[in-house]
Amino acid sequence: MAEQRSPRDRMVFSAAQLIRRHGVAGTGLRDVVAHAEAPRGSLQHYFPGGKDQLVAEAAQWGGRYAAKRVERFVAALAEPTPGALFAAMAAQWREAFGTEGFVAGCPVVASVADCADNSTVRRAASDAFAGWTGAVAAALRDMRVPYKRAESLATLMISALEGAILMARAERDIRPLDVVVEELRPLLDGAVR
Amino acid sequence: MAEQRSPRDRMVFSAAQLIRRHGVAGTGLRDVVAHAEAPRGSLQHYFPGGKDQLVAEAAQWGGRYAAKRVERFVAALAEPTPGALFAAMAAQWREAFGTEGFVAGCPVVASVADCADNSTVRRAASDAFAGWTGAVAAALRDMRVPYKRAESLATLMISALEGAILMARAERDIRPLDVVVEELRPLLDGAVR
Repeated sequence: MAEQRSPRDRMVFSAAQLIRRHGVAGTGLRDVVAHAEAPRGSLQHYFPGGKDQLVAEAAQWGGRYAAKRVERFVAALAEPTPGALFAAMAAQWREAFGTEGFVAGCPVVASVADCADNSTVRRAASDAFAGWTGAVAAALRDMRVPYKRAESLATLMISALEGAILMARAERDIRPLDVVVEELRPLLDGAVR
Repeated sequence: MAEQRSPRDRMVFSAAQLIRRHGVAGTGLRDVVAHAEAPRGSLQHYFPGGKDQLVAEAAQWGGRYAAKRVERFVAALAEPTPGALFAAMAAQWREAFGTEGFVAGCPVVASVADCADNSTVRRAASDAFAGWTGAVAAALRDMRVPYKRAESLATLMISALEGAILMARAERDIRPLDVVVEELRPLLDGAVR
């Protein structure tokens, strides 16, 4: 996969993967260059804004990835309902934790958690959440959830998912993901007009 | 407040406050000693396990603080309901963001976000979430929520709150906190037998 990307894209992807594990402060630029197998000096070339720019683009990549996934989840559902979409969003994390262990979380959360006083990174994380929320809200509207309610439920779904991801990583157990999916299902499906 | 604590307690408290802002990797031991106004060398004396021990105790402090707050919130409610408890939990963060800005989040989340591969810290974060969840579940049971359901709803409340805190910090807006409180209220209050 990574080999087909341009060096610039590989660096953004690698930054996101390292930030998912070690946070922003724990991710060094040299580690990103090594992980991306990029030429030395390419970082300055592609990211004149330095680490802030790279981290911001990694957060934005995370938001775009999550938003695109929403469309794929909906397309794969036999019967698209809000509860089924949320179950699919959580299932992606269940699978990732099952195959990779619990070491890596959401890159957008990681960039907010230790970097909220950096306006470049913080704005990128906000954009990432907004893009993801917008994609979920659009999917809910296609399932006949009223316009304004769709935005609120998308915020609730992403909040509960992000919190459950963090609790699951702490516990090393997918239990919190299963709990939020089961508890929110009636609320989400009940919002369909 | 901080002046009344022992040097050891001040160091744990200071570590938690710095981790809330800068994450674990972004918090240096010297910064903790300076923030706590503790004597140099006291860190090695009180925390022979080094930074891991200090960070683990900071996460545990966060869990105890949150659990104790639950009792105080319930005691202050005119009519204790699950939805009113959740609103009070979120209101604490609304107020903190209003007075301090959005720079500091939950110390337990911060320790998981960039430190989940450190077993000492990760276990402490898990204990912190467990203690907090237990306190919320006990409060819900006192409000006549059935035994097993109380545990699930406590997990949902803490997941949604933690996620909304992160989204609020990214947006610099308390909107996500208000949204999860309003959306979860009927679900939470409907669980009372």
